[in-house]
Amino acid sequence: MSAYQAFDNDKAIEYINNLGGMFPPDAQLNCYEFGDGNLNLVFRVTDQHNHSVILKQALPYARCVGESWPLTLDRARIEASALRRHGEVCPAHTVRVLHHNSEQAVTILEDLGHLNILRSELNAGRTFANLGRDVAHYLATTSFYHSDFYLTPANKKALIQSFTNPELCAITEELFFDDPYQDNERNHYPDALRKEVDKLRHNTGLKLAIAQLKQRFLSAPQALLHGDAHSGSLFVDDTTTKFIDPEFAFFGPIGFDLGSFIGNLLLNFCAQHGRICEASKRRDIHTYLLRTIDICLSEFDYQWQTLCEQHGTDNTLQAPGYAALFLRDVLQDAIGYCGSEMIRRTIGLAHVSDLDEIEDEQARLRAQRLALEVGEQLILNARSCHNKDACYQLIISVLQ
Amino acid sequence: MSAYQAFDNDKAIEYINNLGGMFPPDAQLNCYEFGDGNLNLVFRVTDQHNHSVILKQALPYARCVGESWPLTLDRARIEASALRRHGEVCPAHTVRVLHHNSEQAVTILEDLGHLNILRSELNAGRTFANLGRDVAHYLATTSFYHSDFYLTPANKKALIQSFTNPELCAITEELFFDDPYQDNERNHYPDALRKEVDKLRHNTGLKLAIAQLKQRFLSAPQALLHGDAHSGSLFVDDTTTKFIDPEFAFFGPIGFDLGSFIGNLLLNFCAQHGRICEASKRRDIHTYLLRTIDICLSEFDYQWQTLCEQHGTDNTLQAPGYAALFLRDVLQDAIGYCGSEMIRRTIGLAHVSDLDEIEDEQARLRAQRLALEVGEQLILNARSCHNKDACYQLIISVLQ
Repeated sequence: MSAYQAFDNDKAIEYINNLGGMFPPDAQLNCYEFGDGNLNLVFRVTDQHNHSVILKQALPYARCVGESWPLTLDRARIEASALRRHGEVCPAHTVRVLHHNSEQAVTILEDLGHLNILRSELNAGRTFANLGRDVAHYLATTSFYHSDFYLTPANKKALIQSFTNPELCAITEELFFDDPYQDNERNHYPDALRKEVDKLRHNTGLKLAIAQLKQRFLSAPQALLHGDAHSGSLFVDDTTTKFIDPEFAFFGPIGFDLGSFIGNLLLNFCAQHGRICEASKRRDIHTYLLRTIDICLSEFDYQWQTLCEQHGTDNTLQAPGYAALFLRDVLQDAIGYCGSEMIRRTIGLAHVSDLDEIEDEQARLRAQRLALEVGEQLILNARSCHNKDACYQLIISVLQ
Repeated sequence: MSAYQAFDNDKAIEYINNLGGMFPPDAQLNCYEFGDGNLNLVFRVTDQHNHSVILKQALPYARCVGESWPLTLDRARIEASALRRHGEVCPAHTVRVLHHNSEQAVTILEDLGHLNILRSELNAGRTFANLGRDVAHYLATTSFYHSDFYLTPANKKALIQSFTNPELCAITEELFFDDPYQDNERNHYPDALRKEVDKLRHNTGLKLAIAQLKQRFLSAPQALLHGDAHSGSLFVDDTTTKFIDPEFAFFGPIGFDLGSFIGNLLLNFCAQHGRICEASKRRDIHTYLLRTIDICLSEFDYQWQTLCEQHGTDNTLQAPGYAALFLRDVLQDAIGYCGSEMIRRTIGLAHVSDLDEIEDEQARLRAQRLALEVGEQLILNARSCHNKDACYQLIISVLQ
């Protein structure tokens, strides 16, 4: 294998030609790069019959707001391995890996260009009937089959070793649980939110709950997570839901992915106050988002318990009622992580376009304040939710 | 390095002579093997001036009751590494490693032959004033300095990888949490206990709690544990307390070691009913054991919180009150693991001499029944203990 070098369009075509098998032998390939260039190069390679694949190559750094941040190429191996493992148990909702080369940090993926990124779609007010059920199916299946309920302890320990992902986990550890609750130059938010931010930072109950969430993120390798399950990591259309980009994959608390996903739906909920002027249209999308969350929580809970009953392998963990008890904690974690996602996406380093692209400044501030308030209340009250219905009721109550 | 071969006395001497540095150049070495031969060879090597060291070599199998059980030699590396890491932060209570060779699975240790094994001492009715405080110091220090409160996340993840110990963990996973609660030929207990055993196996609340304890054993790498902190792993005299034999070391729930230690004191408590006839003498040892448990719980709690305050490195986990909240869960875990240690040592594969060597059969059965009853009640009520005092009160109440 040759040493790593970053590709350009010609090198990407040459690599695919040398590899063989991706296109017919007489294919005439075209290529363009369309990644945002911050973390990865992303090429679309197309032949004369309009067949195409995606070639993704990790760069050895992440250019973040104003700073250069070196980042291990090993994340490409982890991403491809996570996609393959998730794809094996949930092919319907995982982008397909066609080839991976760890030395070059290159992965070739099926092209999902006929679908759209969920975040943009929600921002445009579009809805997808299957979203909640599909995401629940992905999260329940991928986590169950990588948990103590299914894997042998020895297999799980070996997988935990191979999915050890310190550099990407450090990003989450710091951006999720540290930065928003203390002064850090990576945070950014308008001066008008200073009072709300100070209030968060002086809430001792909140800081206790955040410490607990961070500790579980650090020390609860319950299953192989996606690790970055926000609405920018989902390709959708009316019939299809596909997760992409699990660079942050690691063995962590199962509630983290579920909480990230719901948190992004709730960020969109808050943002729609400043995006859609027409009250009935806004009510429709709000109703849709809440219904999707409700379905997602219910289906996740139901599918996990069903998987346990039908495919659980550990006699001791099969004790009647234990899966429900375990899921109670998972759901409480999810509500907590959901709240922390909402807060860090509003005042931390990495924001969401849902909020930031609201044109009217006062409307944007109102939406941001709502996101902070909802996030805080979810974190503070998460441990009172004793089942999926209580989780949903809490969400409804804090939105009112 | 030459390939692994099991030593005899001559080879042990030859190895130490070739190694150099253990004895003066003119030393005339004598050697004898005194391990029980089931898991490891243990040689005492002595020179003409009566200076001595212990050479311990792992065997590639564990001969257990009636069966041959192959066992990785890698446990010797893990044991030596754990002793070195624990010895660095708690030299007072950790046997000293003088040399280690992973290929030969050989570790040379300071000779603690002037001390005695705690279990035999307690069985003989002897007491040690410092025991509770010393063990608390060892458990608090070794766990704090290998926890998220002290290590950087990247260092901790690397250590978790290097202390992955699947074969030895599997022994605990099965013997602690599976076997006692189901039919398994590895279990053994007198027919007269059949009724009590059946009662345990039909207690759904107990099986739920055991599932929870097993899940945390599998998926809560909070700190580098000793992994086998029973009273046979402790050398003591009136002034010294030293832990040996951490072959089972791994990153797990902090309460596990504390629970194992307390469980062994309580097994001895139950056994003394059948060992000491004289009521006042029995009362004395009972009082001593309870006082030792009380001191151990209090000192562990106090020292952990003090270490957090003075040496904690993670700003987010330093949130006021969080260490106490974290320790509440650790203590609850400890009470649960304590109870499961008591049950598995009474009816599972590996028993304790405290109970098994009670000569009178009826007295032995009474002590075993008490151990089962106390173990069960501790497991069932562990989650109601909100601090160290509540833990101690629970122990007192279930012994009455």
